[in-house]
Amino acid sequence: MLASEVRALFAVASRPEIVSLAGGMPAVDALPLEAVASTMSDLVTKRGAVALQYGSAQGDPGLRARICDVMAMEGITDAHPDSVIVTVGSQQALDLLTRVFIDPGDVVLTEGPTYVTAINTFAAYQARVVHVAMDGDGLSPDALRETLGRLAAEGARVKLLYTVPTFQNPGGITLTQPRRAEILEACRRAGVLVVEDNPYGLLSFTGEPVRAMRADAPDDVVYLGSFSKTLAPGMRVGWALAPPPVTARLVLAAESAILSHSMLTQLAVERYLATQPWPEQLKEFREMYRERRDVMLDTLAETMPPGTTWTRPDGGFFVWLTVPGGVDTKAMLPRAIAARVAYVPGTGFYADGSGRNAMRLSYCYPPPERIRDGVQRLAKVLRAEIDLRQTFVPRHGSTTDE
Amino acid sequence: MLASEVRALFAVASRPEIVSLAGGMPAVDALPLEAVASTMSDLVTKRGAVALQYGSAQGDPGLRARICDVMAMEGITDAHPDSVIVTVGSQQALDLLTRVFIDPGDVVLTEGPTYVTAINTFAAYQARVVHVAMDGDGLSPDALRETLGRLAAEGARVKLLYTVPTFQNPGGITLTQPRRAEILEACRRAGVLVVEDNPYGLLSFTGEPVRAMRADAPDDVVYLGSFSKTLAPGMRVGWALAPPPVTARLVLAAESAILSHSMLTQLAVERYLATQPWPEQLKEFREMYRERRDVMLDTLAETMPPGTTWTRPDGGFFVWLTVPGGVDTKAMLPRAIAARVAYVPGTGFYADGSGRNAMRLSYCYPPPERIRDGVQRLAKVLRAEIDLRQTFVPRHGSTTDE
Repeated sequence: MLASEVRALFAVASRPEIVSLAGGMPAVDALPLEAVASTMSDLVTKRGAVALQYGSAQGDPGLRARICDVMAMEGITDAHPDSVIVTVGSQQALDLLTRVFIDPGDVVLTEGPTYVTAINTFAAYQARVVHVAMDGDGLSPDALRETLGRLAAEGARVKLLYTVPTFQNPGGITLTQPRRAEILEACRRAGVLVVEDNPYGLLSFTGEPVRAMRADAPDDVVYLGSFSKTLAPGMRVGWALAPPPVTARLVLAAESAILSHSMLTQLAVERYLATQPWPEQLKEFREMYRERRDVMLDTLAETMPPGTTWTRPDGGFFVWLTVPGGVDTKAMLPRAIAARVAYVPGTGFYADGSGRNAMRLSYCYPPPERIRDGVQRLAKVLRAEIDLRQTFVPRHGSTTDE
Repeated sequence: MLASEVRALFAVASRPEIVSLAGGMPAVDALPLEAVASTMSDLVTKRGAVALQYGSAQGDPGLRARICDVMAMEGITDAHPDSVIVTVGSQQALDLLTRVFIDPGDVVLTEGPTYVTAINTFAAYQARVVHVAMDGDGLSPDALRETLGRLAAEGARVKLLYTVPTFQNPGGITLTQPRRAEILEACRRAGVLVVEDNPYGLLSFTGEPVRAMRADAPDDVVYLGSFSKTLAPGMRVGWALAPPPVTARLVLAAESAILSHSMLTQLAVERYLATQPWPEQLKEFREMYRERRDVMLDTLAETMPPGTTWTRPDGGFFVWLTVPGGVDTKAMLPRAIAARVAYVPGTGFYADGSGRNAMRLSYCYPPPERIRDGVQRLAKVLRAEIDLRQTFVPRHGSTTDE
């Protein structure tokens, strides 16, 4: 399932009668629109000649300083604004990194499952994506060491480990702190750069921010951040924090790719952070998403057929659901949509065709009562699918006896 | 001279005591900032949940429809919004096109001189840039046919002709209509796609818009447009109009590169076009830039030493100046900056080291009296340089006799 297929699915899923548990859109309608509007208006009136002009390829220095303050909330206290590049969402940072580091055939290690558009970007540069197994504690260090050893024996050039360690998309899983140390150590030994993609880190439901991998390994990690989930994706403001020589290469690549980012949206984010109560807004988002997660987990527990399992995220947007009885989630999707509920089939999150027995469920966008309806509808479709298979399999078995 | 060197030069040239004839920044301070501010504020208040959310990789359909109306002003009357992709400035369109079409070693033909960041982008994808000669009527069809023949004989894969046919950057030259037809025909025969980069087309000083090449060759031209020069570069809203299969590939590439463009800036441009008197604003820009061009041309005529020549643009931002007597414009630049005037040396606009005897002068940004000062300072520096060389060359000749 390509990213473009996922987008096509989202288009169908956006019909109002369908409860979409598919998209990863943040609930921007919870933002104080009047405050955002007056921030924009002030900015253009007072600093329009700067906000409407070209900027630098690295991004506005004032915004980069504020980004360093944001990262300090996750334990990154040594970041310098000169080491930050502002990008068109963190997606562009990922694209530029791939452009700079990957030659055709180079290996990128990722969790399995992983973020769908990252797979797409790696594929665009002809990287070979190799998944490393994960469990409820995140990426497995044993599996990572085994994979690194096997690839070294093959003579493969392993360049990057791409990981979403905190409230992972799509798994909803957080890598434990002891494992983080083990994984950093294994990558350091193998000369593999770690790309820590962390769009959800500040959306923790326990109140405690999760310490970033970058906080303990400034030379070995490129950190990708974003305001898309904590403020608004329509700004398209993300960033990378990297060791200085890497940042310099990313800036050159960005200049060739887009000349410069929008000063208007960069300064809008900078002004919003400077003048509005963003920490309170973040707290509201966390409480809203936690309530939605609770409704999803409660309804899953009440309705799902035996043998179905799912993750229990402590933050972020996603639950990963594994279905029993040989059900194929991609084949089931049209029936789910007919029953007015949508999800993303698990195969979208693997480069190797895995994930047929899984799906990603998002609780970020629909209000709680819609989440409940959606999960109930999904449970009904899944039960029918299991029944059908149980009826069909013995009958098929008996057919051979006739 | 790399694009990054040009940017470093711009940083020095931005010091207030220096008249910068280097940058290509539009005069955004001439925009009605209150009107832009109220457009933004209205947009966020009334449609914030859409403007602050993710969009599609192709761009907002309403904006794409308005873009088709804009292109109709240049004779492109058959464009469909489905064939348009909105990009982060036209620079991103160029980057995506290069990504889609160019394999390492493929040839891109360009005018000599050409737009500096285009050279950079082609180099980033390891294209071989081959310049085709131009004169006061633009790109030479004879030189193009000769170059195509020579490259065909070599077995080179010529993929694209990149051209800025109207008010060219950096030449200030416009390709004549009869030549446009000849060039389209030569490229069609050779199977070379024409990329028509047209950021300045609506900034004509004669009042008559120049008919776009795309208007007469819908299947053979990818047209790149931008609001950076006619509205504000801080929006980063450009576009490509391409034959549908090309557009589809650009959309996939854009999704992998940035996921989606900013809905906020896209809708801001759309609303500005819908609610503000943009044609009158364009007229103001044209009159302002024409006055600045006149001051530059008049002062050049009054002050430049014999043997210096320059182009006389009918629109756009740039004059191309050629210096006499073996003067090297890159070597002269530090002395010009010491005399408080900056320009871009000609070598920046060639991939092959040509242009040492030329420079680009911009009249778009400084007010008229500053342009006059700057050109006067430049003439003084150039005269001193010529004098120095005339003194030095005989003395050097006599040294060998001692």
